[in-house]
Amino acid sequence: MGGKTGIELRSRLRSTEGLRPSRSCSPLQLLLPLSTEAVHPRPISEVCQRLLPTASAMGLELYLDLMSQPCRAVYIFAKKNGIPFQLRTIELLKGQHYTDAFAQVNPLRKVPALKDGDFVLAESVAILLYLSRKYKAPDHWYPQDLQTRARVDEYLAWQHTALRSCCSRAMWQKMMFPVFLGQPVPPERLASTLAELDGCLQMLEDKFLQNKAFLTGPHISVADLVAITELMHPVSAGCKIFESRPKLAAWRQRVEAAVGESLFQEAHEVVLKAKDMPPLMDPTLKEKLKLSVQCLLH
Amino acid sequence: MGGKTGIELRSRLRSTEGLRPSRSCSPLQLLLPLSTEAVHPRPISEVCQRLLPTASAMGLELYLDLMSQPCRAVYIFAKKNGIPFQLRTIELLKGQHYTDAFAQVNPLRKVPALKDGDFVLAESVAILLYLSRKYKAPDHWYPQDLQTRARVDEYLAWQHTALRSCCSRAMWQKMMFPVFLGQPVPPERLASTLAELDGCLQMLEDKFLQNKAFLTGPHISVADLVAITELMHPVSAGCKIFESRPKLAAWRQRVEAAVGESLFQEAHEVVLKAKDMPPLMDPTLKEKLKLSVQCLLH
Repeated sequence: MGGKTGIELRSRLRSTEGLRPSRSCSPLQLLLPLSTEAVHPRPISEVCQRLLPTASAMGLELYLDLMSQPCRAVYIFAKKNGIPFQLRTIELLKGQHYTDAFAQVNPLRKVPALKDGDFVLAESVAILLYLSRKYKAPDHWYPQDLQTRARVDEYLAWQHTALRSCCSRAMWQKMMFPVFLGQPVPPERLASTLAELDGCLQMLEDKFLQNKAFLTGPHISVADLVAITELMHPVSAGCKIFESRPKLAAWRQRVEAAVGESLFQEAHEVVLKAKDMPPLMDPTLKEKLKLSVQCLLH
Repeated sequence: MGGKTGIELRSRLRSTEGLRPSRSCSPLQLLLPLSTEAVHPRPISEVCQRLLPTASAMGLELYLDLMSQPCRAVYIFAKKNGIPFQLRTIELLKGQHYTDAFAQVNPLRKVPALKDGDFVLAESVAILLYLSRKYKAPDHWYPQDLQTRARVDEYLAWQHTALRSCCSRAMWQKMMFPVFLGQPVPPERLASTLAELDGCLQMLEDKFLQNKAFLTGPHISVADLVAITELMHPVSAGCKIFESRPKLAAWRQRVEAAVGESLFQEAHEVVLKAKDMPPLMDPTLKEKLKLSVQCLLH
């Protein structure tokens, strides 16, 4: 079974039925480096608890939240390649990744996570490569050619502390802190982050994209998926990152066409509506969230 | 030709002959996310400028600084597997990664970097995988088995924003800022970083090592290399991270034995002597360095 469609996901956005209070995070958990794979502003569907499987052999299961950039990359890859999976939605903003139930699936308490029978795997890059190998995805996603594959590996390693960091902070500082959490961000802080993002985008163009059709060659690879889902994070916050960058804009169009407009829209529907979210009212949840994302203010 | 020996490296530590002033970094460069692959305290050998090749076909060249954790992983991997390479030392603390000469090699201005004829590759993870494939390193370094390989990929992805971040900040806050840069670090800041490091180490034990001999199975893999070179960073600053963790200490012994005591010592000789460095006196260099590593104070 494929994952839920975008329409289904959207319709479940406001569903909070059956939600139980998030388990408290210990100070140590809050001090742990914020999972860049767990930074996202809004639950998208129903309750972790309801979705956790009761049987051990459920086929391939993907624990995702499409508000999270790497989850969108995994979702698009699996759907585009016709990989059958059960979608297990984990509502990070509700702290469901801190529940004992989810910790049993992934002790790193992060999404995305993959469960394939008894085999559980975290980290989007590892999941993408696992899926590409197990389901023998077309070569262009992770090319056999020594140098081309090295280019994909290079991008996948670079982005962790470069584009990922910039895009997460830009989105949170521009939108999530002031609008969703009601916490103002100093203008000079946001300006600094946006300048940093601009530098990363320049590097993405000059070092990686250059004059190629895609980041690592003439065909789309997992590097492009990881990059485009990342860039849509600041886009969702109103950052006009493509307007002054025609080369990147043309690349985005090629990626969308290669993925398919419908699937691309489906994967990004939730995050692109995040700006319309009402402010978070629950004071306990708000405080917990502020603590866990404070590093995104730097 | 293999890389320089430890004795050669050490003997060149105080060599500053031929050094030219580092090119100034633009504010944007300083704002760019600090390369976690470029955080290290001390030049180890001679001048970048002298080491840059004049011919394009020099065989395999590795641009390294053994003060840098990922450089040590690449160095050990290449030496252990008998891969012939020319060592090109880039003195990061002198800003040689900002020189035009090095930017022509690696526009990301980071070490490690690999040059193989006309093919240039950045990012230690990509370099390790490239070397393992090109030189057909024994399978255990990056196993063909689907699930074991996924475990290696998972660790390599996780460490970027978890252990890498903690170990760099712990080393800088405990040693480099106060001793080398003469900049005090608030005790509560250091305590918080060390608590975070402790959480990461616990995760390393519980999630990755578990009861296995090595992080991803019964044999050493590139994951172990990346991890041990990382952990030696806070060790060099006097953090007793193994004393209260017998399981991790036993793993360290196994890794050292698998690598070979001599090679392990050779790769870590410089960083383990970093605590004896005199304070940096050059005010211009000190200011530039403080700016570029300020994010390690958070």
